[in-house]
Amino acid sequence: MTLTVVGSIAFDAVETPSGSRDRLLGGSAVHFSIASSQFATTRIVGPVGDDFGDDEYAILRRRGVLTDDVEHIPGGKTFFWAGRYHRDINQRDTLQTDLNVFEDFQPKLSPASRDAEVLFLGNIQPDLQREVREQCTSARFVAMDSMNLWIDIAHVSLLETVARVDCLVLNDSELEQLTDEPNLVRAARRALELGPRVIIAKQGEYGSAMFTRDGFFGLTAYPTGDIVEPTGAGDSFAGGFMGYVAEHGGDADDATLRRAMAYGTACASFNVEGFGSERLYDLARAEIDARVAELEASSRF
Amino acid sequence: MTLTVVGSIAFDAVETPSGSRDRLLGGSAVHFSIASSQFATTRIVGPVGDDFGDDEYAILRRRGVLTDDVEHIPGGKTFFWAGRYHRDINQRDTLQTDLNVFEDFQPKLSPASRDAEVLFLGNIQPDLQREVREQCTSARFVAMDSMNLWIDIAHVSLLETVARVDCLVLNDSELEQLTDEPNLVRAARRALELGPRVIIAKQGEYGSAMFTRDGFFGLTAYPTGDIVEPTGAGDSFAGGFMGYVAEHGGDADDATLRRAMAYGTACASFNVEGFGSERLYDLARAEIDARVAELEASSRF
Repeated sequence: MTLTVVGSIAFDAVETPSGSRDRLLGGSAVHFSIASSQFATTRIVGPVGDDFGDDEYAILRRRGVLTDDVEHIPGGKTFFWAGRYHRDINQRDTLQTDLNVFEDFQPKLSPASRDAEVLFLGNIQPDLQREVREQCTSARFVAMDSMNLWIDIAHVSLLETVARVDCLVLNDSELEQLTDEPNLVRAARRALELGPRVIIAKQGEYGSAMFTRDGFFGLTAYPTGDIVEPTGAGDSFAGGFMGYVAEHGGDADDATLRRAMAYGTACASFNVEGFGSERLYDLARAEIDARVAELEASSRF
Repeated sequence: MTLTVVGSIAFDAVETPSGSRDRLLGGSAVHFSIASSQFATTRIVGPVGDDFGDDEYAILRRRGVLTDDVEHIPGGKTFFWAGRYHRDINQRDTLQTDLNVFEDFQPKLSPASRDAEVLFLGNIQPDLQREVREQCTSARFVAMDSMNLWIDIAHVSLLETVARVDCLVLNDSELEQLTDEPNLVRAARRALELGPRVIIAKQGEYGSAMFTRDGFFGLTAYPTGDIVEPTGAGDSFAGGFMGYVAEHGGDADDATLRRAMAYGTACASFNVEGFGSERLYDLARAEIDARVAELEASSRF
């Protein structure tokens, strides 16, 4: 099945204890599609400026990502983010955020993008997420991300969007903020009442948890000792997760969703082992499968 | 097999969003033994003052905990701790700590306590932990806890003690502090080089992780929505873990250790559902088994 992702395309500048990079290909839709393209043909929808060139397109296309709906804004500059990671790599400071062309982003989907059976609404303004969702009438499984900003300033719109998706993927703290419920289990139960049949809480270095009306699935992170730069780990997780769902027909029963979480976890673990999503650029599917097998062995008792 | 635990016996005063209690039976050895006694005969070694009376002994004895080595210090007062939990129950402030009789604690083990095949060295000064460890010559599986205080002020002694145990159980942040390594996987690898063949990282609300020379096991916390008061959750975890090891002969192969982690996780989940360890006072073994079965189902994919 085909997969469409809408979200940010960016350049990131990062400082880490093991080195700095001043122009990394980043953005939620990029990290997502680099991972999801391992499993399903992925169309990426998002805006770029004049500074986004052949090198960047080449990276996406090498992974088979379809870039027809990357919208070039003449005279504009691509979204830019700069951050500094601490010695504890789970801590970071944002140094600069320039929205640039992302500020006035109005997603324009080609017929092919609208026909996707699986759709991921990356972290953008919830009105826009809803517009995209309405256009994709063939979608059989729709998931969305969001962030604390939209929970704060666009709460009502966000709830309307949440009501129209199958799966909500948020950081655990965002899920607690959205539902005003400091206990994750209660927060997830409330979120299920908002409409989605699947709630996924991303827990960073600790792993992830899935809540459905029928039950719970918890998976610890893949234990990597080689963390270089974790920007985009959550987006890689979502990409692996949604890619696996698309690969398996979009039915997304419990067994498929659980295995999709493991694929997301494996993709995230590769993401953090390099700058940006570079570790995934030339990754073989077999390497991901091997980590999923390791996760299966290391979670069984 | 019999199990001996050395550690604190305390009265706790706690404030939580759902109520306050000013005199709860607490302390690491108490939380531990209330859990471990579900699985194996447990002897508790620790000091109490004149304020520790028949009611407190009755709680321990009702669970079959052997209290012969509870040392009554005439004229003394029992260790007292007071804390306030936030709305996010994973955050707390310590309001008061009175070591009282615990300050000059010198563990005295009866022959029966020394004969235990399974030994847990609760969080006390590492010289004392080592003295106890040396006395228990029959012990086949020895685990220990510690804390940031001893890592700071008794580092060399702590390393000597760590070298003499089979299993080190620490919070993840303590493990990273002990090894001066901000990545948990690397921290665990370094800790394995210090002597123990098993390193367990407690990760609070997220679960726990076990590292051995052969591999890794990760288990998320049991998803309870009814958290009342979490003091002693880590000690209940250790009690369930060590109790299960003692029940299964102390051999502690990988399969036993994994299942023991699940039993520890289940005990911790009951602990947080009431004040102190009250939720475990009258708990049936079948209730624990049921949660372990749920954990098994919710971690499999």
